[in-house]
Amino acid sequence: MRIAILGGDGFVGWPTCLHLSAQGHEVHIVDNLSRRWIDTELGVQSLTPMDSIQERCRIWKEVSGEVLHFHLLDLAKEYERLKAWLVDHQPDAVIHFAEQRAAPYSMKTDRHKVYTVNNNVSATHNLLAAMVESGIDAHLVHLGTMGVYGYSSVGAPIPEGYLDIEIDTPTGKKAQEVLYPTKPGSVYHMTKSLDQILFQFYAQNDGLRITDLHQGIVWGTHTDQTRRHDQLINRFDYDGDYGTVLNRFLIQAAIDYPLTVHGTGGQTRAFIHIQDSVRCIELALNDAPEAGERVKIFNQMTETHRVRDLAELVAKLTDAEVAYLPNPRKEAPENDLIVKNDQFLALGLDPTTLAEGLLAEVVDVAKKYAHRIDRSRVPAVSAWTKDLGSRVERDPEGKSLKSVS
Amino acid sequence: MRIAILGGDGFVGWPTCLHLSAQGHEVHIVDNLSRRWIDTELGVQSLTPMDSIQERCRIWKEVSGEVLHFHLLDLAKEYERLKAWLVDHQPDAVIHFAEQRAAPYSMKTDRHKVYTVNNNVSATHNLLAAMVESGIDAHLVHLGTMGVYGYSSVGAPIPEGYLDIEIDTPTGKKAQEVLYPTKPGSVYHMTKSLDQILFQFYAQNDGLRITDLHQGIVWGTHTDQTRRHDQLINRFDYDGDYGTVLNRFLIQAAIDYPLTVHGTGGQTRAFIHIQDSVRCIELALNDAPEAGERVKIFNQMTETHRVRDLAELVAKLTDAEVAYLPNPRKEAPENDLIVKNDQFLALGLDPTTLAEGLLAEVVDVAKKYAHRIDRSRVPAVSAWTKDLGSRVERDPEGKSLKSVS
Ligand SMILES: NC(=O)c1ccc[n+]([C@@H]2O[C@H](COP(=O)([O-])OP(=O)(O)OC[C@H]3O[C@@H](n4cnc5c(N)ncnc54)[C@H](O)[C@@H]3O)[C@@H](O)[C@H]2O)c1
Ligand SMILES: NC(=O)c1ccc[n+]([C@@H]2O[C@H](COP(=O)([O-])OP(=O)(O)OC[C@H]3O[C@@H](n4cnc5c(N)ncnc54)[C@H](O)[C@@H]3O)[C@@H](O)[C@H]2O)c1
Repeated sequence: MRIAILGGDGFVGWPTCLHLSAQGHEVHIVDNLSRRWIDTELGVQSLTPMDSIQERCRIWKEVSGEVLHFHLLDLAKEYERLKAWLVDHQPDAVIHFAEQRAAPYSMKTDRHKVYTVNNNVSATHNLLAAMVESGIDAHLVHLGTMGVYGYSSVGAPIPEGYLDIEIDTPTGKKAQEVLYPTKPGSVYHMTKSLDQILFQFYAQNDGLRITDLHQGIVWGTHTDQTRRHDQLINRFDYDGDYGTVLNRFLIQAAIDYPLTVHGTGGQTRAFIHIQDSVRCIELALNDAPEAGERVKIFNQMTETHRVRDLAELVAKLTDAEVAYLPNPRKEAPENDLIVKNDQFLALGLDPTTLAEGLLAEVVDVAKKYAHRIDRSRVPAVSAWTKDLGSRVERDPEGKSLKSVS
Repeated sequence: MRIAILGGDGFVGWPTCLHLSAQGHEVHIVDNLSRRWIDTELGVQSLTPMDSIQERCRIWKEVSGEVLHFHLLDLAKEYERLKAWLVDHQPDAVIHFAEQRAAPYSMKTDRHKVYTVNNNVSATHNLLAAMVESGIDAHLVHLGTMGVYGYSSVGAPIPEGYLDIEIDTPTGKKAQEVLYPTKPGSVYHMTKSLDQILFQFYAQNDGLRITDLHQGIVWGTHTDQTRRHDQLINRFDYDGDYGTVLNRFLIQAAIDYPLTVHGTGGQTRAFIHIQDSVRCIELALNDAPEAGERVKIFNQMTETHRVRDLAELVAKLTDAEVAYLPNPRKEAPENDLIVKNDQFLALGLDPTTLAEGLLAEVVDVAKKYAHRIDRSRVPAVSAWTKDLGSRVERDPEGKSLKSVS
């Protein structure tokens, strides 16, 4: 297949490119490299030393013999170039990772809110309009998030995208299938909830074939391909904006920084290892809906955990301390979470779990590059409202940590 | 009250400005005049001769003694100016009409789709972010549409914004209230469905006080204020993109053009007279939700009708012919529609219906300005998909009309 991987320079995108290239697909990376610019803006860098995308592609060619094509293009701002690109390259599938993906970054200031909405909505909508207009018949696979549903305390199992409801009509109750109602908890999550409506419309009006993967929090760093050469290493975010919870604990442990739990740690979240993430994308790619079919929605996760349990687990493994800090997010302090992932299991996914021993591998990677960490960038400082901002602990290091709460 | 009326130069915005100014409110019009530019782009003009906004404001001062302030500002593209404007003017209420509002225009070409999404989403989101950031405590009243729900054949009564559902949980069924599920049928309607999610988030995260008015199709042209001077006349769209169904029939009748019904005419839609529309906005304005309350959603309509019944009604009144044409829209050919509008009735709305004799007034206005009509701009030519495009009848005039179908 000829596959366009939008956002292929990112954390999930890059190992996906390698995985699909290793399987013999013709892979085209389309990325505006905005994530690298955000590193510059924030003055942070990936824990792992990350080469330019051009250099990474060159190394992959050396290692595997396969060519990765790179195209610098902004999906959100260059509609006409995007359309021309699709016409020229006629991809069989398009995998869409190209969005601003950090909730804390999306809540930093009003500028960041506006950027996130404009970038994500325009990127997704431009892509849909360009797919229709160019007349290509490609399967679109998009990365969404479990977080669109919010994390309430209701505790209902989250089905795969749809909910059957009954509506009262003058002639009695009628069954109807609707998109599972969303309740996003950040501007970032909100954009994924908007994406869902865009997909629903274009599948219905234009018969686009779309799969939306509602992904849990990705952890880990290596896949089979990134292990093949030092310079193929994946990016690894540890800062308070882009670092995600489990990977952050593992890094904090590696540098003797307290494991920072925000709030009670009673938040339950869904997780998936990066190796399973790329495998799921491959499975979804080969299971395209028909034209005219509703959007296929998968929950892409393998297990759920309470944040404080994860912290205790990592603490036990590494002798780290756990620090409970005030929560800068507006969210339920405690929630249950039951997620259905029957569709991927049915397609043959064999889940890699925390029990698999890969936690130690991540700590090893973190230790190896510990000298590259700026400890002052570890705290999470983006607050969901101005009120919550005043409670943010800007320097959680030090003995008095446990008393802040 | 000091009231900012965004999109106050438009068809519903202008009479709203006059109505609220006549009641003694301090009215500020904020508009980028994009709708006038679209007239230029399409080469059409309002049936009624419409003065510049500055001139209209000058006449209103002469007639009423009241000042209308006009501010040229693009909500979608000038975030920083918008924020500064709110800080400077500290409005008590903001009424938001400022979106691209024609479904056919939004489906014209990919450029029009992209424009509609970018303009409408950015306008609404910029406004929300700026309201939070500027710290003003204003009630936001937004104009949405009944059309977000799509017009399916299920025939369930449309409640006012929310639906009570039951969700299965491990501990039994739990009741939950969700936004009534949307199924927009055009890119324009889709943007209003996106707006809903933006409102839900900002009401919940930031305590913004928001009312969303899901309006039916507005008909009529005069209100008590526009009648006060020739130059205060409202805009009146008759072209295939911006002209809406009932007003188009009345104009077609006035110029001996066949009344063009697309499809079977079995589509049922909700309607409201422009005089009631401005009255509803006033009622909603005075019934603001509290901070922290969910978004208040009203159905703003007074009656529902099947399109072919309207055509027959106007035909009978005026001796016009009815022409059944192929439908360029992708929609259910026939649907029932029951809409609840209990909230406005409870607030004291006394509906103006078709029976009120105002149909003839519209025909009179149309006859007066009939010489300004370009008959070639009457057909609706925007098609929902390329396939449907080939069925569009570009010149429905002439004897053979009834055979096209
Ligand atoms: N990392 C996770 O834990 C996680 C969890 C759930 C869902 N997801 C989703 O998976 C996708 C990829 O996540 P990630 O962690 O790899 O993010 P990332 O930020 O590392 O990668 C995103 C890539 O998209 C590019 N991009 C952004 N906007 C663009 C635009 N307008 N035009 C072109 N390129 C653009 C960026 O430059 C970057 O290379 C995202 O959509 C994210 O929401 C990620
Ligand atoms: N007319 C109807 O039948 C009807 C029915 C249901 C809902 N509505 C809604 O009511 C609202 C007003 O409708 P209308 O018929 O008066 O439309 P209109 O097109 O006549 O007026 C919209 C006004 O908003 C302005 N505008 C658009 N984008 C802007 C931006 N980015 N910045 C500043 N100004 C901008 C335009 O210049 C125009 O003056 C719309 O939101 C529409 O969706 C209208």
